[in-house]
Amino acid sequence: MSKVLGIDIGGTSIKVGMFSTEGTLEAVTKIPTGEITSEAAFAVVTEGLKALLAENGATPEEVIAIGLDVPGPVDDDGKVGMLANIELDPEGLQAAIKRTFANANLAFVNDANAAALGELWQGTAKGANSFVLIAIGTGVGGGVVANGKLISGAFGAGGEIGHVTVNRDETDACGCGRKGCLEQYASATGIVRSYKRECKRLGIEPVALDGPTDTLSIFNAYRAGDEAAKAALLTMSDYLGYAMAQISVVVDPQIYLIGGGVGGGFKAYAEDLRAAFRKYCLAPSVATRILPASLGNDAAMYGCAYEALLEREA
Amino acid sequence: MSKVLGIDIGGTSIKVGMFSTEGTLEAVTKIPTGEITSEAAFAVVTEGLKALLAENGATPEEVIAIGLDVPGPVDDDGKVGMLANIELDPEGLQAAIKRTFANANLAFVNDANAAALGELWQGTAKGANSFVLIAIGTGVGGGVVANGKLISGAFGAGGEIGHVTVNRDETDACGCGRKGCLEQYASATGIVRSYKRECKRLGIEPVALDGPTDTLSIFNAYRAGDEAAKAALLTMSDYLGYAMAQISVVVDPQIYLIGGGVGGGFKAYAEDLRAAFRKYCLAPSVATRILPASLGNDAAMYGCAYEALLEREA
Repeated sequence: MSKVLGIDIGGTSIKVGMFSTEGTLEAVTKIPTGEITSEAAFAVVTEGLKALLAENGATPEEVIAIGLDVPGPVDDDGKVGMLANIELDPEGLQAAIKRTFANANLAFVNDANAAALGELWQGTAKGANSFVLIAIGTGVGGGVVANGKLISGAFGAGGEIGHVTVNRDETDACGCGRKGCLEQYASATGIVRSYKRECKRLGIEPVALDGPTDTLSIFNAYRAGDEAAKAALLTMSDYLGYAMAQISVVVDPQIYLIGGGVGGGFKAYAEDLRAAFRKYCLAPSVATRILPASLGNDAAMYGCAYEALLEREA
Repeated sequence: MSKVLGIDIGGTSIKVGMFSTEGTLEAVTKIPTGEITSEAAFAVVTEGLKALLAENGATPEEVIAIGLDVPGPVDDDGKVGMLANIELDPEGLQAAIKRTFANANLAFVNDANAAALGELWQGTAKGANSFVLIAIGTGVGGGVVANGKLISGAFGAGGEIGHVTVNRDETDACGCGRKGCLEQYASATGIVRSYKRECKRLGIEPVALDGPTDTLSIFNAYRAGDEAAKAALLTMSDYLGYAMAQISVVVDPQIYLIGGGVGGGFKAYAEDLRAAFRKYCLAPSVATRILPASLGNDAAMYGCAYEALLEREA
């Protein structure tokens, strides 16, 4: 039976899903890794993949496609660009995997783009012709699907919607070097920043936070009636709705899906976000649906597997 | 020999091109029309089309595809939305044409989207996988092509890039009802408005203008060293470059094409526009090319013909 693997590459481990060609997740494993830049490190990955297959009665020969999602740009030709947050030699890993899995088509996919493809394959967007996934985590990533296909972009910047400019008056710089990006307000980091600012403004003692991306505590404070948390989430919703209105005059999708870690708190800000989008959007797009993504942290693993399978069939 | 017709529908006349299936423009005619809402008016159109064919040794039976471009939204299903500037009954005209041209596939296309398809078929973008046409005329329209296909949008608002918000501090309303749209600064109307404002600010006597969209006189003033004209074109370039930087984080095209009436003055502002885009864009997209469109006012006529042909082959 043909198998497809999806490999979600993180900073300290990789998560691997074994799928049927129809998209059923049959098994999943986590393989601890460090820097993936040496033959020894590549072997840890390939041995881990072989072990997953063996445990589930499959062989390397049955694997026809392997997707790898990476936290960084991948252009239309599948070439991986600069990876700021992980140590990975993409060509080296690719060569090592190819030696072990001779029948498999390999594809690298940007993580947010992969998450969009995952939602298209087996998630909320199944069967949709056009949608935009907004993945809210430490940063804000995105995946744009139009005419049923992902838009990676000529320079790998398709769906980099964390970098839509939403506030031209911002004085702090975004990680990208520009100022006033959506990511500065709507990412986990951005929400924490807004929260602290609002606490100061309102003279409220902030709740204890477990680091600079702990939105969970802020969502809890919100549910407990914390005014600063309410204001921070309102700021996020307003800027996010505004950015979506900008995206709609470019690609005008049927659906927006909100995913990523902060996507899990969707219910808390769904109504404010929908109201903000309706306020800012061009009239024809007012009926665009705004929904939570459904595959959670597995979306990218699904999606890179799907992309590798699609490219094999193309 | 199979023929394809492209019909550019304006307020007082239609322009019709007869094309080979390879995209050679073999003949063109202009048919005066008034409101196209009655059987008599439909007959003027169909008789005009038949005359064009007869004059060029072709028959209605040879016509396999007819495109019609309209100045208004057309959704992914080819349905025409609200037309603000012309009196047209799309269904009525469609039915009348179908009766005369039984072998032809008919397609309505938004005019800016059609212009993009025209440039893809026979213009600067021939063979490009992704590009965005920005059509600058009385308003600012656009056509977005990604993965080799036009993005019409779920609600017909794909490529409505005249309505990217570029100035959240604007107090005047755009035609769409929102405030600070690109169109308010980069359209012919917008350039004239900026010019007058700059004349007042600088204490310069404005040159004589032939109406509220006479950018030709402003381009002439610019070439003669008029400071207000220079400032107005700089404002246009800055906002346009900023809007393009927003578009690039969504679809990240290979090329921007500047077309429409004001596109003809491209040389005057090309360097300022390229500099503005480079200043505002996300780093990976800095190499995006910015070029003039090449089909001028015929682009939409080419493009709607092409779309009708493509849909027939699909």
